[in-house]
Amino acid sequence: MTVLDDLALDTDRARNTIVHFIRDEITKAGYHRALLGLSGGVDSSLACYLAVEALGVENVLGLLMPYRTSNPSSEADARLVIRVLGIPCRKIPITPMVDAFFELWPGMNARRQGNVMARMRMTVLYDQSEEFGGLVLGTSNKTEILLGYFTLYGDSAAALRPLASLYKCQVRQLARAVGVPAHIIVKPPSADLWADQTDEGELGFTYDEADQVLHLAVDRSYEPEDIVRVGFAPDLVNRILRRIQMTQFKRSAPPAPTLTGLSTRK
Amino acid sequence: MTVLDDLALDTDRARNTIVHFIRDEITKAGYHRALLGLSGGVDSSLACYLAVEALGVENVLGLLMPYRTSNPSSEADARLVIRVLGIPCRKIPITPMVDAFFELWPGMNARRQGNVMARMRMTVLYDQSEEFGGLVLGTSNKTEILLGYFTLYGDSAAALRPLASLYKCQVRQLARAVGVPAHIIVKPPSADLWADQTDEGELGFTYDEADQVLHLAVDRSYEPEDIVRVGFAPDLVNRILRRIQMTQFKRSAPPAPTLTGLSTRK
Repeated sequence: MTVLDDLALDTDRARNTIVHFIRDEITKAGYHRALLGLSGGVDSSLACYLAVEALGVENVLGLLMPYRTSNPSSEADARLVIRVLGIPCRKIPITPMVDAFFELWPGMNARRQGNVMARMRMTVLYDQSEEFGGLVLGTSNKTEILLGYFTLYGDSAAALRPLASLYKCQVRQLARAVGVPAHIIVKPPSADLWADQTDEGELGFTYDEADQVLHLAVDRSYEPEDIVRVGFAPDLVNRILRRIQMTQFKRSAPPAPTLTGLSTRK
Repeated sequence: MTVLDDLALDTDRARNTIVHFIRDEITKAGYHRALLGLSGGVDSSLACYLAVEALGVENVLGLLMPYRTSNPSSEADARLVIRVLGIPCRKIPITPMVDAFFELWPGMNARRQGNVMARMRMTVLYDQSEEFGGLVLGTSNKTEILLGYFTLYGDSAAALRPLASLYKCQVRQLARAVGVPAHIIVKPPSADLWADQTDEGELGFTYDEADQVLHLAVDRSYEPEDIVRVGFAPDLVNRILRRIQMTQFKRSAPPAPTLTGLSTRK
């Protein structure tokens, strides 16, 4: 019995809960439609399947927002999801806006470039939400959120976040259960910012490692030494816990000073 | 005695509190520098004065981010603040990126255009925060925040929000106290998206009206009928309170479903 067994999901109930969540939140806000960016990855594919179940095929818009250097196989996978589900889609390459930006700062490093791209996609998505008359669905999962592995005001920006309570391994389980094409589920997750980039290569550990350590630390309140005792390397545990700490600001509202009692009228 | 007397600020203490807040938050985050967009308006001018007091002249970067149609007098006012304070500045027009965006959707309405511009400025500001090695200061005040009069993931995006506890009339009081040039304080506030646009024209009421009604409703927990009894028109009160309600989503974290207890392992 490993920690991963702890993360085995009751996929029927999770599916039902998330589908109802999407329908309720969209309806409560006075809408009946949603849209999301489809990257061809497992997170946005799963979010799309669940949104279609919640709102109906014609009420979910899939947006393709490739950049010039994006891997064509990413778009092919996104288009597969669109075709299988039969949803409307729109392709809006971010290349013209992003290149206008990059021209201002030649030699910008890859991280800054990635952040600009993520924020440009957010800007397109929110603008299209007005055009389509729907709310923006986020595709961040619990692992990414806790690791702070996202661009603030970029890919994390959304009206609701249906996958925010699922660890990456649980996203895969649920994706399997709802019928997301298998090769989308098993391909190495990537932000697709440069050739051969993978999330796990960039993070320096695997999602399975992160999921287990995060689960023990966050859901079970284990102390670091207890997590090590379960069998995880001290260095791995430290790096993951440090990421939670260092990215706390990405998960919190920006602070403001307290000014009560500063009226001149006492 | 009017409700506005209630909002008379002890400017010495408010100034001191906010200056300490800025210094503490920036230091706590491991930084010693900050940057902000200067629009030439009273909010960003005041935030800049306070940031200089907290961090020192050389540690505050003022960004000018005009669009092609921006009023040249806005930039002139921003440059006045920069000159008086002696801070470093950088001008990065958003025109190339924004025009590349607008070309995709000719005939986009003014609201959508304004949102795109606000998000483009956020993208520039956050990118420059890496270049400059400082944190982004927000310039939203309490009135704008409660009215939801801002672009989500646009002008509201910041690492800290030093003015978030000040109503607009209190921003003006504090601006006077710290020496912001008078004509910046008294000119009609405007998002400067089209000629002759003013905040108050767009909102349909004055900031003084909004400040008073918001203060009674939010800080004093008055019921609508009590606010009317104080002397405000029922229609005005309704419109302001309705804005608070309708924009609640802009002030809250995006919701996520609760999935506890969905492990297959009981």
